[in-house]
Amino acid sequence: MVDQLSEAERAEALDALPDWDYDEGRDAISRSIVFTDFAEAFGFMTQVALIAERADHHPEWTNVWNRVEITLTTHDAGGLSARDVDLATAIDSILDG
Amino acid sequence: MVDQLSEAERAEALDALPDWDYDEGRDAISRSIVFTDFAEAFGFMTQVALIAERADHHPEWTNVWNRVEITLTTHDAGGLSARDVDLATAIDSILDG
Repeated sequence: MVDQLSEAERAEALDALPDWDYDEGRDAISRSIVFTDFAEAFGFMTQVALIAERADHHPEWTNVWNRVEITLTTHDAGGLSARDVDLATAIDSILDG
Repeated sequence: MVDQLSEAERAEALDALPDWDYDEGRDAISRSIVFTDFAEAFGFMTQVALIAERADHHPEWTNVWNRVEITLTTHDAGGLSARDVDLATAIDSILDG
């Protein structure tokens, strides 16, 4: 079990994740990424899939050719948790790497 | 360039793809699949990704943990084409295999 972030914790987390949009209605964060082509997009998804599986925390995501849209929230917590922040940070690291 | 299916061709194709829903508004077909868990869902997506890349024809798809929703249409043809039917048939083969 993991706790939903407090307002202060969430504000701090969002400051550190400037590429992510906050969806207040769902208490979720999302990021859209455009790659060169499908192979690059799906390669990225495979990297994220392995990290997500190891953390046992998975994204909601959509892929259309070179675009990937990722949404993170924690159903068990009823909203954004530290697990989402960790996964978002890991995703940013892949993209910046 | 690939041609949009005629009405008769489409009717025949849909008969052979009973697990797919036809979206008239988009002239697209879609299928939702529920797997045991994320690893199984993403394993399936990886198989489809390789087939799609080899055919240079890619799905629009969404994954939420053990669920995958796939939509197929051919932007260049302005709707459903033989390439969608081929990819749908290949996807069915993976799922029935």
